Amino acid sequence: MTDVTARSPAGFGRNDLSAPLIAALTDYGPGPYAALLQASARYPSAPHATWLDLDHGIALGDVRGGALTLRRTIPSLPPCVCVAVVDPGVGTSRRAVALSTASGHRLVGPDNGLLEPAARRLGGAVALVDLGESPIRALGRGRTFDGRDLFGPVAGALAGGAALHDVGQEADPGSLMVLVLPNPRRTTQGLDVTVLEVDHFGTLVLALDDQVEALGPLPPVGAAGRVRSSLGGSAEVRVGRTFADVPAHELVLYRDSDDALALARRGGSAASLLHAAAGETLTITFDEDDSDDGPEAA
Amino acid sequence: MTDVTARSPAGFGRNDLSAPLIAALTDYGPGPYAALLQASARYPSAPHATWLDLDHGIALGDVRGGALTLRRTIPSLPPCVCVAVVDPGVGTSRRAVALSTASGHRLVGPDNGLLEPAARRLGGAVALVDLGESPIRALGRGRTFDGRDLFGPVAGALAGGAALHDVGQEADPGSLMVLVLPNPRRTTQGLDVTVLEVDHFGTLVLALDDQVEALGPLPPVGAAGRVRSSLGGSAEVRVGRTFADVPAHELVLYRDSDDALALARRGGSAASLLHAAAGETLTITFDEDDSDDGPEAA
Amino acid sequence: MTDVTARSPAGFGRNDLSAPLIAALTDYGPGPYAALLQASARYPSAPHATWLDLDHGIALGDVRGGALTLRRTIPSLPPCVCVAVVDPGVGTSRRAVALSTASGHRLVGPDNGLLEPAARRLGGAVALVDLGESPIRALGRGRTFDGRDLFGPVAGALAGGAALHDVGQEADPGSLMVLVLPNPRRTTQGLDVTVLEVDHFGTLVLALDDQVEALGPLPPVGAAGRVRSSLGGSAEVRVGRTFADVPAHELVLYRDSDDALALARRGGSAASLLHAAAGETLTITFDEDDSDDGPEAA
Repeated sequence: MTDVTARSPAGFGRNDLSAPLIAALTDYGPGPYAALLQASARYPSAPHATWLDLDHGIALGDVRGGALTLRRTIPSLPPCVCVAVVDPGVGTSRRAVALSTASGHRLVGPDNGLLEPAARRLGGAVALVDLGESPIRALGRGRTFDGRDLFGPVAGALAGGAALHDVGQEADPGSLMVLVLPNPRRTTQGLDVTVLEVDHFGTLVLALDDQVEALGPLPPVGAAGRVRSSLGGSAEVRVGRTFADVPAHELVLYRDSDDALALARRGGSAASLLHAAAGETLTITFDEDDSDDGPEAA
Repeated sequence: MTDVTARSPAGFGRNDLSAPLIAALTDYGPGPYAALLQASARYPSAPHATWLDLDHGIALGDVRGGALTLRRTIPSLPPCVCVAVVDPGVGTSRRAVALSTASGHRLVGPDNGLLEPAARRLGGAVALVDLGESPIRALGRGRTFDGRDLFGPVAGALAGGAALHDVGQEADPGSLMVLVLPNPRRTTQGLDVTVLEVDHFGTLVLALDDQVEALGPLPPVGAAGRVRSSLGGSAEVRVGRTFADVPAHELVLYRDSDDALALARRGGSAASLLHAAAGETLTITFDEDDSDDGPEAA
Repeated sequence: MTDVTARSPAGFGRNDLSAPLIAALTDYGPGPYAALLQASARYPSAPHATWLDLDHGIALGDVRGGALTLRRTIPSLPPCVCVAVVDPGVGTSRRAVALSTASGHRLVGPDNGLLEPAARRLGGAVALVDLGESPIRALGRGRTFDGRDLFGPVAGALAGGAALHDVGQEADPGSLMVLVLPNPRRTTQGLDVTVLEVDHFGTLVLALDDQVEALGPLPPVGAAGRVRSSLGGSAEVRVGRTFADVPAHELVLYRDSDDALALARRGGSAASLLHAAAGETLTITFDEDDSDDGPEAA
């Protein structure tokens, strides 16, 4: 059984050219655009690719939301080609790029901040090409559907065996546009944080794994406190390892399945309870007399 | 043409190990969690599996809704691995299981009632393992995303050739948690039923196939009556075989494509007309003088 | 690199029988019906098919909306089997058909206007069969889920190698039901148009490629004017080639990525701005003194 239990990234092995993986993330919604993106990648270059629709529900034009979802999810994928399109600047002069990371993933999309957090999480971009004059662009079509006419075909070419320099003009990997994220801040009584994401379960992501590391030690498991939103929402919270560490309907502050700092409500929605959406500022204070001898939140 | 017309379950043949089928049903919604579940099943154990997203739109934490959808759909699938995750108890001590059925299907998920109606429909569980100490669990990760860290990898291992006893500890198949469903009841004038499900078309499922059998004969096709909801909605209804048996915009009571008793509105939504949601009680009465000589609802 | 840049339809090559493509378009929504359609096509006839969910978000029973989406998207797919089900007449006597087009695509679905615009766009139907007595229909099931019990199995059989005459009774390709579309009309001051579709980005499709050709020359790029909706919405508009031809939040009238005449709002939703939905009539007038010497909208 050793083979099936090897779940480390190293265990993924090299991307299998007989069935390469292409993952896609867009703000295309439930309509036909995601399917057209897939078809443009698959035919003619990669008919046997495995296709993974990572998320097409990114809010329209929400580059930050797309970037965070991409960063959070792509480390769970083996080295693959990932085409990401949240592109309010399509049809303008924003740069289109493809890059490879230290981990062996290749990312394709607009250079508007969407790809950078994921690339950094994957060890950084080690090579990058500008797709502005790509020989892969579908000719004779408009300039308003780059997913189908540029990014998809480029992703397919890469999955089908093309090298980065086959699909665009080499450029400085350091030129990739950086996405600036709000940073969580430690206060004398607790934390000031900005909600980065709200997921389908109403769980709030407050700080990414590396931001949590930079913050330093959190109060121990079991520590109690209070969360206040800038809109007046307020509720008790407890530091935990998982939902089971708090009673039903209570808030738990914990390291989530991606090591991010998250705020969830057991059996409910933290977002609804606090009326908190992405971008909202939250103030968390901890009770002074409530630190126990338990270990820190793992 | 004999081969392509063989649509009986027996015609499915054995699950093909060169492209095993994995089906998935969750309450993960449109975001990235369903894709991460897929990736965790596919890599590294089953890269060539065919993946079928059965339904990710189960209402959050609605174990009964998920169980009914699973029960209704899985008989249309060949023997396969099905991973089902509607799991409000994730992170607590609820049991996680994998099982095989008399039909040759294998089901993976939390033991909270979600799997039992489907297992029963498939001839019953013939083997069951407890995944609590599964060697397949992804180590070093949190305990809040068992879809990605336990159920997905287990489903992938099974699809890749592992046996049940490779992925967990053998347990009594009879220990699977039973889901209790409301039963339809015959009255002197008709039926008292609870709405089990409402589908995308606004059609109401009122009783499962075996519940209908237990009820005994229904009024004949063409019989007319009236439906009343506990919220005051009321409308005429006619027993039929299909939508064509009633005029446009009228209600028809019929055996649906899964032999369940269903209430639909021709060219409209029965749910909207009656303001009826899952869990709602409906009273159906039939006109005494309206029985004709037609056959029973087939 | 020649192979990967060949994006013309001819470049797709013949449909690969080792992994034939089946595309699907329905109004089934996010629930399990689309998955059951897929399973019914795949097993037992086409287990190794590539499956493409083109769009399952067509409004309930909206044959015109489905027909337009199908027509718009299928030219981007290689010769394949496409099963389309928007079928308010299921269970009645409407005809069920399968057909092949001059382009080599095969379409399967109800004969209610859904397939005809796509067939015409693909060079016309060159062969057609009536599926009323098809040997492929799943027997012993109801008559209310033809997607699973007829259209899916037929699509699978075709993808698996069956010929049209294996799945139904030959009929006149000219008997395919025609979908009548509203035609854009030129006025002394501009255009009267009906909104054919609204996409996920709020972009309005006003006239299909061939309707635009029939209209004759449009005002040149840069021409300014005004759009009025019948509900009182009104806004300035400019003719452009792409979004970049107008300032942020302004409307642009352009030929979209399918050569249709479309109205979009840069960085926003034209539909929201004009409160315009499909079926809405718009009046576009152009300023007389605003024609410049630029080229026509390409």
